Amino acid sequence: MPLQDRKELAAMQEHKDICFRPIGYFRTPFSSPVGMPIQPAGARGVRGHVELIAEYQDGLKDLDGFSHVFVLYHLHEIGGYKLLTTPFLDVIPHGIFATRSPARPNPIGLSVLRVIGINGCKLELEDVDVLDGTPVLDIKPYVAEFDACDADRFGWFEGNSERAREHRADERFTT
Amino acid sequence: MPLQDRKELAAMQEHKDICFRPIGYFRTPFSSPVGMPIQPAGARGVRGHVELIAEYQDGLKDLDGFSHVFVLYHLHEIGGYKLLTTPFLDVIPHGIFATRSPARPNPIGLSVLRVIGINGCKLELEDVDVLDGTPVLDIKPYVAEFDACDADRFGWFEGNSERAREHRADERFTT
Repeated sequence: MPLQDRKELAAMQEHKDICFRPIGYFRTPFSSPVGMPIQPAGARGVRGHVELIAEYQDGLKDLDGFSHVFVLYHLHEIGGYKLLTTPFLDVIPHGIFATRSPARPNPIGLSVLRVIGINGCKLELEDVDVLDGTPVLDIKPYVAEFDACDADRFGWFEGNSERAREHRADERFTT
Repeated sequence: MPLQDRKELAAMQEHKDICFRPIGYFRTPFSSPVGMPIQPAGARGVRGHVELIAEYQDGLKDLDGFSHVFVLYHLHEIGGYKLLTTPFLDVIPHGIFATRSPARPNPIGLSVLRVIGINGCKLELEDVDVLDGTPVLDIKPYVAEFDACDADRFGWFEGNSERAREHRADERFTT
């Protein structure tokens, strides 16, 4: 094995912790995971905001020129995971990485949300499917050129994803 | 202020570290950030894979039914950030959260990549715009019903995003 590959493998095998700090917190109408919408598709029109920690406020500049953002957040109520999981929208288990279930090895949530506006440290959003108090890790503008794709196969979701609009969470992934 | 709000605020103000562990690592043709494509749009046809750590292999089950995935990863070469940044595709500064620049407060990368197949611990991907050795945090199936949106405003990207296909990274965000 070439030296470079060996070095890389050794570095990889350390599997060091990767630590982040919240840049802010969601404020939303959902104080309990039970009964929440399970995706933005089920939270159309629901308003909420990200309250940015003051030191990051300048980072919002020009974000209100975008109609949508990705928000990455820490699914902080999740206490464990299973590699095979039966998601809300199906009755048979799938690999956790083939689902959007929150009980993941690294519980990071991802939602595409509509931008309403910026008000100081507050980023006002719509279609919010996130628990109140959720720590926010990152906000990125949604750019069709990068993020829209010609996806045409949706595995086990096919025929099931429509149900995400009506379905509400139950207690299965809470601690 | 009601007790609940005070409790929440106090909890928020702790701003605790949130730590994750890699679930695997990217293997790609890009050994240096300089000269890399800056988005999947600039990496069409580029093959690579995520080498999952063996203990997570079962989590891939059924993921090959999907044509595209989101991969979240640690931008591990990034050593700092500025809240106002001049991105590759523009000449004036914007708030970091209104850009896709890697030098972010929490350097988490997000790419929508095409699934080629699963081979043991290897998730074979296409359109890979990621540095070799990058630690992977999460993999999620792309579901049009959740993730496609009617975005119609792209701020400063409008008129610029086409250039992402040709543009290559320079050294500005490396350590």
